[in-house]
Amino acid sequence: MKFCSECAKPISLLVPEGDNRQRYTCLHCDIIHYQNPRIIAGTLPTYQGQVLLCKRAIEPRKGYWTLPAGFMENGETTEEGALRETLEEANARILNPHLYTMIAVPHISQVHIFFHGELADLNFSSGPESLEVQLFDEADIPWKELAFPTISTTLRRYFTDRQHTNNKDQNTPFPTHVFDIPEKNKLKL
Amino acid sequence: MKFCSECAKPISLLVPEGDNRQRYTCLHCDIIHYQNPRIIAGTLPTYQGQVLLCKRAIEPRKGYWTLPAGFMENGETTEEGALRETLEEANARILNPHLYTMIAVPHISQVHIFFHGELADLNFSSGPESLEVQLFDEADIPWKELAFPTISTTLRRYFTDRQHTNNKDQNTPFPTHVFDIPEKNKLKL
Repeated sequence: MKFCSECAKPISLLVPEGDNRQRYTCLHCDIIHYQNPRIIAGTLPTYQGQVLLCKRAIEPRKGYWTLPAGFMENGETTEEGALRETLEEANARILNPHLYTMIAVPHISQVHIFFHGELADLNFSSGPESLEVQLFDEADIPWKELAFPTISTTLRRYFTDRQHTNNKDQNTPFPTHVFDIPEKNKLKL
Repeated sequence: MKFCSECAKPISLLVPEGDNRQRYTCLHCDIIHYQNPRIIAGTLPTYQGQVLLCKRAIEPRKGYWTLPAGFMENGETTEEGALRETLEEANARILNPHLYTMIAVPHISQVHIFFHGELADLNFSSGPESLEVQLFDEADIPWKELAFPTISTTLRRYFTDRQHTNNKDQNTPFPTHVFDIPEKNKLKL
């Protein structure tokens, strides 16, 4: 940020009175331009034990596999954002979504939120940001070709949770898990 | 947003190619200035059945009671943000925080996240953004003087969850709940 987006004057980076962090501040119109973490909302769509993954058609990590997810938009709820991204990237609909993982990625100031739900049907297909969309058995997950640590973290947790699930409780959603991705794991999948 | 924060030229509001929403776009330096929801991170601090509330010393809702919470900062995790705000507003520390509510407020493009935890000690006091900090029994909660719908939603859910808790399970955290605050409830507390 170099100029004030309200008055076009050069911006100053300083600690405002009563604050303890540097902020982009316009000394001309007295506005502080706060910068805050962004939310990535997505889903973990499953179908009779298989998991839906999308092969990314765009950078970053083009050609790698991801869960359908993207930046949450102004004016929507977290669930609406997650379901919208699932529809956009995989033309897929899921039933009874519930919050499954919330993963902070502080070194890039993001919070990734995934809702788990069973696919409503098998009528999924690649959206414009996906090269392929495919269901995977646990044994076939392309662990070395996953796009982001938040994807591998969510998938690993899911397979662990499922292992410990009593078959009689299949209608009870898994509990919500909170994780953080430390910077040293930036490229560790 | 009126000017590009990178080049100071006037900004255009248009739907970029391949997108389906209007974005603040600089046609001079070809940058899209995305705007996304912000996260409010906070805690529900409890102590032997009582709940800690802070009376706001700042607008909006100055003089009304809130749970300690504030804007999550770049570079921190959700839990770090929640604990920092609890320390800043109430000089309070909580033990074993776990994610309790995630509440979308789409009409103001915010997501409020509260971690529940027991106070580590009774050495709490007002920070600069609080007029008072006080423990309340359920019967004494100032329901009509709560600052925001996300606060009343979290408190109501907590007292309901507690009612249904087996005393033997006191060490098991309550499950995480996801809510949305519709616009019509904007001022309904």
